[in-house]
Amino acid sequence: MNNKPDTPVTVVGLGLMGQALAGAFLKAGHPTTVWNRTAAKASQLVAEGARSAPTLDDALAAGPLTIVCLTDYQAVHELLDGSDIQLDGRTLINLTSGDSAQARETADWARRRGARYLDGAIMAVPQAIGTAEAVILHSGPQSDFEAHKPTLDALGTVTHLGADHGLASLYDVAGLAMMWSVLNAWLQGTALLRTAGVDAATYAPFARQIATGVAQWLPGYAEQIDSGSFPAEVSALETDARAMAHLIEESEALGVNAELPRLIKKMADRSIAAGHGAEQYPVLIEEFSRPAAD
Amino acid sequence: MNNKPDTPVTVVGLGLMGQALAGAFLKAGHPTTVWNRTAAKASQLVAEGARSAPTLDDALAAGPLTIVCLTDYQAVHELLDGSDIQLDGRTLINLTSGDSAQARETADWARRRGARYLDGAIMAVPQAIGTAEAVILHSGPQSDFEAHKPTLDALGTVTHLGADHGLASLYDVAGLAMMWSVLNAWLQGTALLRTAGVDAATYAPFARQIATGVAQWLPGYAEQIDSGSFPAEVSALETDARAMAHLIEESEALGVNAELPRLIKKMADRSIAAGHGAEQYPVLIEEFSRPAAD
Ligand SMILES: NC(=O)c1ccc[n+]([C@@H]2O[C@H](COP(=O)([O-])OP(=O)(O)OC[C@H]3O[C@@H](n4cnc5c(N)ncnc54)[C@H](OP(=O)(O)O)[C@@H]3O)[C@@H](O)[C@H]2O)c1
Ligand SMILES: NC(=O)c1ccc[n+]([C@@H]2O[C@H](COP(=O)([O-])OP(=O)(O)OC[C@H]3O[C@@H](n4cnc5c(N)ncnc54)[C@H](OP(=O)(O)O)[C@@H]3O)[C@@H](O)[C@H]2O)c1
Repeated sequence: MNNKPDTPVTVVGLGLMGQALAGAFLKAGHPTTVWNRTAAKASQLVAEGARSAPTLDDALAAGPLTIVCLTDYQAVHELLDGSDIQLDGRTLINLTSGDSAQARETADWARRRGARYLDGAIMAVPQAIGTAEAVILHSGPQSDFEAHKPTLDALGTVTHLGADHGLASLYDVAGLAMMWSVLNAWLQGTALLRTAGVDAATYAPFARQIATGVAQWLPGYAEQIDSGSFPAEVSALETDARAMAHLIEESEALGVNAELPRLIKKMADRSIAAGHGAEQYPVLIEEFSRPAAD
Repeated sequence: MNNKPDTPVTVVGLGLMGQALAGAFLKAGHPTTVWNRTAAKASQLVAEGARSAPTLDDALAAGPLTIVCLTDYQAVHELLDGSDIQLDGRTLINLTSGDSAQARETADWARRRGARYLDGAIMAVPQAIGTAEAVILHSGPQSDFEAHKPTLDALGTVTHLGADHGLASLYDVAGLAMMWSVLNAWLQGTALLRTAGVDAATYAPFARQIATGVAQWLPGYAEQIDSGSFPAEVSALETDARAMAHLIEESEALGVNAELPRLIKKMADRSIAAGHGAEQYPVLIEEFSRPAAD
């Protein structure tokens, strides 16, 4: 099987990310074939031992596994539709960023072409590829993932989320929403504290502690969502809303941006207006699950 | 000094929180005097060993330290302005929720009355008081905090933030902004994943891991803010903004609320429009530090 470092792999697309991916395979000892529209981008990798395929078809034919990493799904389709190579039994893993609908469409396209297909999302910057810090999400048939996991392990922490090809994109954007939200809340707090002369370095450990602490509540809160029952075991949404008003007032009084505080309260107020004031925070899933009416 | 469990303490205000505070002092062995506008709320505490003071003045005179915990600062002023007891040398610790301006005003008022004053904020629910989980923030003169810390330790994890009386309120609302932001980002992700049949319990550990991971970046990112220099060591804001567009599109396509995604992108777009597209995320501190122009 593919669990030896001499398992060949092909990388199509040698932008910043594709070069990092190919570099990590080479470093792990895999015979690595590369191809890029602009051929010059292969030269550094060739110097490191990669084989530069003369054509896309040659690249796809070089081995059982091809990793594709282009700008977007449109580029993937433009490129691959131009090839009429037999993909029967070969595996394509598409690490290009896109949405869940594009991932599912591309899975259908690959099935029609006879290819095995996994969709992936890279939650890392190119510099992190090849280290455990680089999280790479995959979705599609579990057996296809398992077959190539020993090869993929060269890239970082690789995980399989489920058979639905859309899952990697969904987890990716959900994770990014968490990332930006933690950063934004930290910036909001930093902006507030700086008005009192507290520097960012002094405030950061406090923000880190709160974020880490609240993160531990999520599995428990998830049980409320899955059971559809939101008893106010810890505190009621109405009580939270009063403190949200303090956050808005404090931000406005200090001349700090108040848009994030106002959005926080708006979501809660809507849920209270819908009759959930005496329930607990996760009841807001109902608001987050539908577009705003106002 | 006040480091023995026989140090007397007074609690004024016996709402849900005041009762929990007085209960924790009693449990730790402190002779505890209590007073509440509606006297009946003292009866349970009296049964547990508290002394119910007949008047507010009597309560304030009972010992060197009084904890005040009422609905809001207006209630604090209405109540305390009605007393003409000598506060010279006594310490008031006001754990009522309010904003930094109210805390600083109340510190001025206390100084005029000859009292030592600390302002505090309780980051806990009443049920947690008396356990290490209850974080209680204090600000004001450090020596006053140190003098009473052994007594305050009965309440939970007590910390001192600095001499500026406004700091406890500021850290409090900043911490709450982080709490709600982590919860909201988790709800956003949960809503997205549920469209693919993934239940909340399956998604929660992933969200927890991202929140915990990103929290670790904050001290490093804080250095960029304090130095006022935001080199794109990891990724540039412009790259982030493209992924933000994916988050919005995915949310809209799946019929999930997109207000949080849109606010995330709006803040970034503003910073890019101000010329910071090639810099790193913490440069957004400039947007968070001023009211929206649009
Ligand atoms: N860089 C990151 O930090 C990062 C992080 C996570 C995910 N990603 C994702 O990884 C993917 C690649 O990113 P990147 O940073 O490598 O981008 P990049 O440096 O801009 O490279 C884009 C690649 O796509 C190729 N390409 C674009 N259109 C094409 C077409 N029509 N036909 C053939 N090839 C085409 C380019 O070929 P040419 O060289 O010929 O132009 C190049 O190899 C993107 O989906 C990105 O969102 C990147
Ligand atoms: N409960 C929580 O989860 C929680 C968490 C963190 C912080 N806090 C903060 O702790 C403070 C107290 O909260 P709580 O939950 O104890 O509220 P509560 O149960 O509503 O109690 C309010 C207290 O304030 C007293 N009061 C109000 N107006 C007064 C006035 N004009 N004169 C004299 N006494 C007056 C009430 O006396 P009567 O009994 O006579 O009405 C009662 O003792 C608030 O600032 C709250 O934000 C609470």
